[in-house]
Amino acid sequence: MSHPHPLDQTLTLTPQSTSATGDAVFGGRILPAYGNMIGPYGGIIAALLLKAILQNDQRKGDPLGITINFAAPLDDSELSITTQLVRNNRSSQHWNVSLSQQGQIAVTASSVFSVQRDSWADQELPLPPVPAADTLKSLPTAGMPAWAANYDMRMIKGWVTLQPDHQSDDSTRTLWVRDNPPRALDFPALLAISDCFFPCIFVRKQQLVPTGTITLTTYFHATPDELAQQGDQFLLASARANRFHNGFSDQTGHIWSATGELLVSTHQLV
Amino acid sequence: MSHPHPLDQTLTLTPQSTSATGDAVFGGRILPAYGNMIGPYGGIIAALLLKAILQNDQRKGDPLGITINFAAPLDDSELSITTQLVRNNRSSQHWNVSLSQQGQIAVTASSVFSVQRDSWADQELPLPPVPAADTLKSLPTAGMPAWAANYDMRMIKGWVTLQPDHQSDDSTRTLWVRDNPPRALDFPALLAISDCFFPCIFVRKQQLVPTGTITLTTYFHATPDELAQQGDQFLLASARANRFHNGFSDQTGHIWSATGELLVSTHQLV
Repeated sequence: MSHPHPLDQTLTLTPQSTSATGDAVFGGRILPAYGNMIGPYGGIIAALLLKAILQNDQRKGDPLGITINFAAPLDDSELSITTQLVRNNRSSQHWNVSLSQQGQIAVTASSVFSVQRDSWADQELPLPPVPAADTLKSLPTAGMPAWAANYDMRMIKGWVTLQPDHQSDDSTRTLWVRDNPPRALDFPALLAISDCFFPCIFVRKQQLVPTGTITLTTYFHATPDELAQQGDQFLLASARANRFHNGFSDQTGHIWSATGELLVSTHQLV
Repeated sequence: MSHPHPLDQTLTLTPQSTSATGDAVFGGRILPAYGNMIGPYGGIIAALLLKAILQNDQRKGDPLGITINFAAPLDDSELSITTQLVRNNRSSQHWNVSLSQQGQIAVTASSVFSVQRDSWADQELPLPPVPAADTLKSLPTAGMPAWAANYDMRMIKGWVTLQPDHQSDDSTRTLWVRDNPPRALDFPALLAISDCFFPCIFVRKQQLVPTGTITLTTYFHATPDELAQQGDQFLLASARANRFHNGFSDQTGHIWSATGELLVSTHQLV
């Protein structure tokens, strides 16, 4: 008897229909295993939208970037995702995606795909100096929202202790992270992890303030080869807020491979 | 006889039609004054899409964030912009926008708007230490693409000299910038400026390599009050690339007011 990984169980989409213009509609649902405080974990919603594009027959190449706008909370009932190829260029594609639940659009996304090509390469942002993952303990996830148990997180900086004397003027959160149980990395899994940072306001105020992602943009630097090399090793993830204002804040984060390649730059408004 | 500012001349949109669902279509064209190397300057395209949302009667509140996907180059012929209110919540709105030229979608955007509310505030990213704008000379724009003449740019770091011995391993570009002639700041003008950085590859390689923005995401921290306070003073803008790879690179930038408030975080894939 096979036991699919929880990520693969939730990222299962069923083709429902294809319009005359090739817009493909998929059905799915997000399992309670990826629940967050209100509705599912944003990273899994993002991964599901990307998975829908990957399953569209018109798709060519690999994702370069994706923006997901969270317009309304979801629940764990059935949902449908419409994928539309807006523009099909020789070496790139532009996609629009929308996710509906109970007949209303709740999430939208746009994504750019590209066929690989070689060029001048350089990385300005190095892996920060951090202790090795195997020298650190896994974060206990008991009492946390369900999604956290699907990740093995080894915190380096930015603990949420809820102790007032741990309030900080620096929201930086740095951790080693991988799927739990370990799973070979692919683009949906990497996108899901790009939302793994505990909310910056929790770290600053050491309080569980109601919070939610409004829009998330992730750029993929990773190539399929780098994903294959990474396999199921730990990723180094680090993020920091820029400004808190009028109930909103933004953060910028980066994810490196175990060997120091920058795989992702990710930004969100919370 | 009045002489509208070049920015206002190009950001002029004419209502064309409104669908039964309230999707409003606007017509316009981008003047050669905002031309770049191939087609118009990306910042002016972004500003035009934002302006279209601001002109939609259903719009409420101010922009929080916008993502623009550049799917095909534009020219200076007529274009049409369709604005669609995808989700209308109590205190926020989600918009999809598409720009067509010669009957094909060339640019798409999504944007989140919000009604202002007060909350806990703090800024983690301070204005970097820089010399005052009035101690620096304006960058001569003769020989540069047309758009540059619409900005008064006072370079601090990241010159493009095209001298091989000025090649650098740091793509940081920092400058004071404002509209030329000076113009009171509003959201479209601020968005246009968020694309003002010379391409990072020019600074690294000191060569004019063919380059173009694929997707741009700008988060607005600025409130209408802060925009009014800023008026037509210089803004401090700074950006840096994270990784160059497979012909792509991404950059993260920030824009501060003259008095040090962080007004914008902006990210793009090039």
